[in-house]
Amino acid sequence: MSWLITEDMVPHLARGAAVLGTGGGGDPYIGSLLAQQAIREHGDVTAVGLSDVPDDAFTLSVAMMGAPTVMVEKLPSLDEVVAPVRALEANLGRTLTHVSCAEVGGVNSTIPIAAAAALGLPLIDGDGMGRAFPELQMVLPTLYGVTASPLSFSDEKGNTAVLHTVDNKWTERIARVACVEMGCSVMISGFPMNGTQVRDALVPDSLSRCLAIGNGISEARSTKSDPVAEVSRLLEGREVFAGKVVDVERATTAGFARGSARIEGGAGTLSLSFQNEHLIARTEERILATTPDLIMVLDEESGEPITTEALRYGQRVRVLSAPSDPRWHSTEALDMVGPKYFGYEIPPHRFDGAAEVPA
Amino acid sequence: MSWLITEDMVPHLARGAAVLGTGGGGDPYIGSLLAQQAIREHGDVTAVGLSDVPDDAFTLSVAMMGAPTVMVEKLPSLDEVVAPVRALEANLGRTLTHVSCAEVGGVNSTIPIAAAAALGLPLIDGDGMGRAFPELQMVLPTLYGVTASPLSFSDEKGNTAVLHTVDNKWTERIARVACVEMGCSVMISGFPMNGTQVRDALVPDSLSRCLAIGNGISEARSTKSDPVAEVSRLLEGREVFAGKVVDVERATTAGFARGSARIEGGAGTLSLSFQNEHLIARTEERILATTPDLIMVLDEESGEPITTEALRYGQRVRVLSAPSDPRWHSTEALDMVGPKYFGYEIPPHRFDGAAEVPA
Repeated sequence: MSWLITEDMVPHLARGAAVLGTGGGGDPYIGSLLAQQAIREHGDVTAVGLSDVPDDAFTLSVAMMGAPTVMVEKLPSLDEVVAPVRALEANLGRTLTHVSCAEVGGVNSTIPIAAAAALGLPLIDGDGMGRAFPELQMVLPTLYGVTASPLSFSDEKGNTAVLHTVDNKWTERIARVACVEMGCSVMISGFPMNGTQVRDALVPDSLSRCLAIGNGISEARSTKSDPVAEVSRLLEGREVFAGKVVDVERATTAGFARGSARIEGGAGTLSLSFQNEHLIARTEERILATTPDLIMVLDEESGEPITTEALRYGQRVRVLSAPSDPRWHSTEALDMVGPKYFGYEIPPHRFDGAAEVPA
Repeated sequence: MSWLITEDMVPHLARGAAVLGTGGGGDPYIGSLLAQQAIREHGDVTAVGLSDVPDDAFTLSVAMMGAPTVMVEKLPSLDEVVAPVRALEANLGRTLTHVSCAEVGGVNSTIPIAAAAALGLPLIDGDGMGRAFPELQMVLPTLYGVTASPLSFSDEKGNTAVLHTVDNKWTERIARVACVEMGCSVMISGFPMNGTQVRDALVPDSLSRCLAIGNGISEARSTKSDPVAEVSRLLEGREVFAGKVVDVERATTAGFARGSARIEGGAGTLSLSFQNEHLIARTEERILATTPDLIMVLDEESGEPITTEALRYGQRVRVLSAPSDPRWHSTEALDMVGPKYFGYEIPPHRFDGAAEVPA
């Protein structure tokens, strides 16, 4: 199945992506502008379902890598967006057939739209996570043995690199330090896959899901119903906390936006820990949600997703949790994206719709 | 003119290179082993003078990048030495015709011999500095508008990167942070040049000069004459200090071996500052020598060059200064390699055979 992504859809799709981005991925509004500009200049983008990607397709993901705090201030030009793709095409001697999304999240759901428009190629309706994660190797394709490299990255100055690495963690390590040196934000392209790999390894229908969430929020607003409840329903999730942001600590270190926030509400104080994305939500008594499940902070009335870099004192928010793609709960996957990987000595809490575990 | 580099020549050539390496480039003995192994396996290496490089030659420099303290502990295999060359050949779709030297200095004069042997290609009798400098862009070709990129680098694990950068300083910046992440030592290849560029931009006859210095030291030892005086004569240099090493401070930071040493002698106390290479030699009263001129620390009796990472308390040494290639004294060159670039607020002292300037 294929469908068209038109200019007017982009803000809704971006808002839904920012919800699934669980705090990461940067300001969806800024990412929307670039995708809309690209569609105006180059025409609508065709989104194709995983089942419609030919076995012999040559697909690459296109994304922005870096600290969201910096990414939103350094939005690339369309030339920069396609530069890493062109570098890989030259390196591999192949012509790209489809653009794919590494993750869903503000900027990284709209950048691939811009890339697909500028390249005149279809965009795969799927992504590598079903959410956002801070490091490059943290995608389901890694679990299927897909190599991140050859992977290329480019900056706004015109510097480009092509990496061939022994594993996806090394791609992350080398690209990350280069990204920091290049100004904490680069455009990347990598994870070359054919159609068979795409079907195995990607989360299907991600863009459709983002659009459904974005449209759900808009519709709830216009019908004066509750947008947060609508998001929770669409994600089969649960509201775990509501309150006022009373403290935010944030630092951009080693190429990430790391920090924590405290939210005070009727049920006590919620502590949120994040590295680009929200990773842990806990009160003094209970762990409410942990990575790899989704933790989302939304404005209590409008349902607007609030990214980690946009968290501010005084915001009144509601915190949702929802299940991640079940493949994220395998032992191998938890080694890559579980709480322990990020330095938290707590067991992964698997969303079950109601249960809470003692902290 | 061309001549053969045979296995028995390598230790002498390496010792001479370590003299011109002004403290940098790592242990010449360790570098020799690799070049000798390569010659044993693949045959002697033909060294060709700059005038014998055809105009349409495709030359690349091959070198080790990193902190000498680490480089000597991670000597590469021959496969690793040729890996970055193969990566660039694939990237550019061209076959290398000649190997060139980026600098003269312990490991980085013998690594290109090993590369030329393993690749079955001639080695250019010349180099990009006529000495050693710590950063990648610090070569005369940069002053002639030769781009460092495309430049590739590889590690012992099998990771490889190809950079295309907007200038040579950016090549250095990106390669350096990646090098540090990859273990503080990588094999690099870059500075693609044709024969015309080679003739313009390289220092001629560097390898011949290294061999002459190495042979001069050996001969002086065997005839019981003074090896240090022989080196000074060959370089048209001057002994600026003699004494005992009483203090060495050294740290491997940001991919460099940085530090300082104090030497006590009849003429007071000499202070040496280095970043991989010796950069400043001064007493309390006088500046004796500064980058870009050559500062060399030799064992007082044997004339053995002492690298910055081999400096130890109690060594009795003599310190020589000698003029660098005159092109290093242009305003543009001094901006790149003068004392100020390295953080010393003193004017460059140009070697004149006798004069000293007040500190």
